[in-house]
Amino acid sequence: MPEQNFTYQHLYSFTKIVFQKIGCTDEHADSATQSLLSADLRGVDSHGVARLSGYVRLWEVKRVNAKPDIKIIHETPSTAVVDGDSGLGLVVAPFAMQIAIEKAKQVGTGWVSVQNSNHFGIAAHHAMMALQYDMIGIAMTNASPLVAPTFSIDKMLGTNPICVVVPAGNEPAFVADLATTTAANGKLEILQRKNLQTPDGWVQDINGKPSNNPHELKRGGALLPLGGDREHGSHKGYALGAVVDIFSALLSGANYAPWVPPFPAYVPLPSQQPGKGIGHFLGAMRIDAFRPADDFKKHMDNWIQGFRSSKPIPGEEKVLVPGDPEREMHAERMQYGISLLETVVKDLKEVGNKFGVEL
Amino acid sequence: MPEQNFTYQHLYSFTKIVFQKIGCTDEHADSATQSLLSADLRGVDSHGVARLSGYVRLWEVKRVNAKPDIKIIHETPSTAVVDGDSGLGLVVAPFAMQIAIEKAKQVGTGWVSVQNSNHFGIAAHHAMMALQYDMIGIAMTNASPLVAPTFSIDKMLGTNPICVVVPAGNEPAFVADLATTTAANGKLEILQRKNLQTPDGWVQDINGKPSNNPHELKRGGALLPLGGDREHGSHKGYALGAVVDIFSALLSGANYAPWVPPFPAYVPLPSQQPGKGIGHFLGAMRIDAFRPADDFKKHMDNWIQGFRSSKPIPGEEKVLVPGDPEREMHAERMQYGISLLETVVKDLKEVGNKFGVEL
Repeated sequence: MPEQNFTYQHLYSFTKIVFQKIGCTDEHADSATQSLLSADLRGVDSHGVARLSGYVRLWEVKRVNAKPDIKIIHETPSTAVVDGDSGLGLVVAPFAMQIAIEKAKQVGTGWVSVQNSNHFGIAAHHAMMALQYDMIGIAMTNASPLVAPTFSIDKMLGTNPICVVVPAGNEPAFVADLATTTAANGKLEILQRKNLQTPDGWVQDINGKPSNNPHELKRGGALLPLGGDREHGSHKGYALGAVVDIFSALLSGANYAPWVPPFPAYVPLPSQQPGKGIGHFLGAMRIDAFRPADDFKKHMDNWIQGFRSSKPIPGEEKVLVPGDPEREMHAERMQYGISLLETVVKDLKEVGNKFGVEL
Repeated sequence: MPEQNFTYQHLYSFTKIVFQKIGCTDEHADSATQSLLSADLRGVDSHGVARLSGYVRLWEVKRVNAKPDIKIIHETPSTAVVDGDSGLGLVVAPFAMQIAIEKAKQVGTGWVSVQNSNHFGIAAHHAMMALQYDMIGIAMTNASPLVAPTFSIDKMLGTNPICVVVPAGNEPAFVADLATTTAANGKLEILQRKNLQTPDGWVQDINGKPSNNPHELKRGGALLPLGGDREHGSHKGYALGAVVDIFSALLSGANYAPWVPPFPAYVPLPSQQPGKGIGHFLGAMRIDAFRPADDFKKHMDNWIQGFRSSKPIPGEEKVLVPGDPEREMHAERMQYGISLLETVVKDLKEVGNKFGVEL
C-alpha cells in the first residue's frame, strides 16, 4: 500500500492546529498532540495520528468536551480521583499523571484513578512522564468491550493495557506497555491488509469457537485474553484485564466491563451506563522512597545488561528488554520522518479541509 | 497414587510444632503455619505442607533464620523497605503486608519492598490480609530462575507471581493470583505423574526449541513466559515477570534475575550475589481513599454478577470470576479435610521423626 512521509514537526503543527480548531486551549492542544504523536513515534501506528479524525468525530457528536474543567474530586496524601469532564483522554491522562507525580514527591507514591475521560492514546506516553523525576511510572486504561473472558462468548473487557516504566542509569529506561490480550486490534488490521490468517489463540468467532479469521471481530467474534485459551493461561490474561478495569473504573466511578463507551462516534453508547466516561489509572513511585536512586540505577543497569547478554535461541538475533523496539523506532522516525498510509493521509486531509488547515 | 486425608486442624498442630521445634516463636510459628496451609486449603498443593520439609532443610543449611529480627530499614509515609533477616518468607511477608496496611490507613496506600527473605508460599494469603480493612491487596515475589525470556535460552526469571485481591459487597472477593508463566511448575509435576505431554507453549528444551516434555526442566530446559512464544504474546508475560522482579528486588536490594536463591537446599547459591535473599513486594490501597467503600462494593458486586452471568461457550458450564475455584476448594477442604499424596505423608513423617512429633 502506498505511503507518504512526514516529519514529526509537520504532523505536530497540523495536529495542534486541528485540536485548537475544535476549541482546545493552546496548552491542551500541545498536550493532546504530544500524547497522540508519541504513538506514531514509537511505532504504534494504530493509536497515533491515524485516530485524529476519530477524536474529531467524538467532539462533533459531543462525546468529547474540548474545554474540560479537569479536577480532583477526592484525595488523600497518596491518592486522588480525577473527573476528566469528558475531555480528551490525551489531555486528561497527563493531567492525572502529574498529580500522581506530585503526590509521590510528597509521600513517596501517588495513585490517581480517573473517571469521565476518553481514549488516552498509548499508555507509555503518560507513564514515561515519571522518568525525569527518577520515579517508576504506571499507566492503565479500560476500553470498550472487544475481549471475551475465558469460557465466555460475551465480550466483557477491553484490550485494557498495562504500562510500567522504570528508570535506569546508563541504560535506557525499561518500558513495558502491553495490551492484556494475545494481540491487540492493530495486529489484526495488519493481517487483514495482507490477507493472512491469525495464529491460534488470537480470536474466537461469534459462537466462541477458535478462529483464524482476522475479520472475526466485525462478524461478532471476540479478541482473546493473553494466553488464548484455558490450557495456555487465558484465565491469567483475563484476570489482568479485569484488574485494569477495576483500578481504572471501579475505583473512580467510570464505566466498566461491557458498558465502556466505544471509540467510533457512530456506535451508540451502551444504555444504562453505571458510571461516567472511560476510566484510567496512573501511578508514580519515587525510587528514593525505597533506596537511593543511584544504587537502584546501578543495579537496574546490571539487570538490563544481564538480559541483553543472555544467550539467544538459534535463529534469533538477540534477547530484547521491554521498550527496545519502540525506542529504536522513535529515534528512526525523529530522524527520517513518519510514513503514513495513503488512506490515513486522505483521512487527515479531510479533517484539515473541515477546518481550513493544510496537511 | 494413594492419598491420605487429614483435617486442617491436625495439619495445623503438626506444622506449628515443627516450626516451633526449629526455633520459631509461638507467634511466628502461627504465622508461618497459616501462610503455608493456606496453599493446601486453596488447592495449590505444590506450595503447601508438601514443602514443609524443604523449609526445614533450608533452616538446616542455615539459609533460613528461625529467629529473625525483621525490620524496616527505610521508609516514607507511603513506602517502606523491610529487611527479612533471612527469616521464613511465610513470616516476613505477612509482617511486611501489615506495614503496607498501616501506611494505607494513614495516607491512603502503602507499598513495601522486601529484601533478605525466603519463599513466601502463595501470594494470595498475604494479599488477602487487606480485605478485612476494605482495602485492595497486592502481593508479588521473585523466585529462582526457571523461565527463559522471549528469544532466550538462558533462564533469567522465576515464575514471579502477581496477586491482586479486591473486596466486594455481597459477592465474595475478587482474588487473582497468577504466575507470569503459561503454566507453573506444579502443573508440570501433575503431567509427569500422569505420564502425559505438556501442551505447546509451556516449556522449551536446553537449546531453546519448543518441547512437550514435562521433564524438560530437569534436562536443562526452561518454563516459558505467559503467552508461550512471541507470536502468542510471550514478550508480555516476560515483561510482567520482569516487573515483579524489579518491584520485589531492585527496589529492596534483594537478589534478582538469575541470582535469586533456589528453594532446594542442596542446590548451591549462585556466586557473586548482587543482593540479599529473595525479594517480595506488598501493597495495600484503601478503597475509601478513592470513593466511599459502600459505593465501590455495590459496583463491584454488579461487575462480578455481570461476568458470572455472561454467556458461556457451548460445552463450558459457566464463566468464572478470578478466585472462584480456590474459594470453593477452601470450603470443601475445611469441611472434608485435605488429601495428601503418600509421598508427601512419608516426607512429613520423616520431618516429624527428626523432632519427635507425630503426624
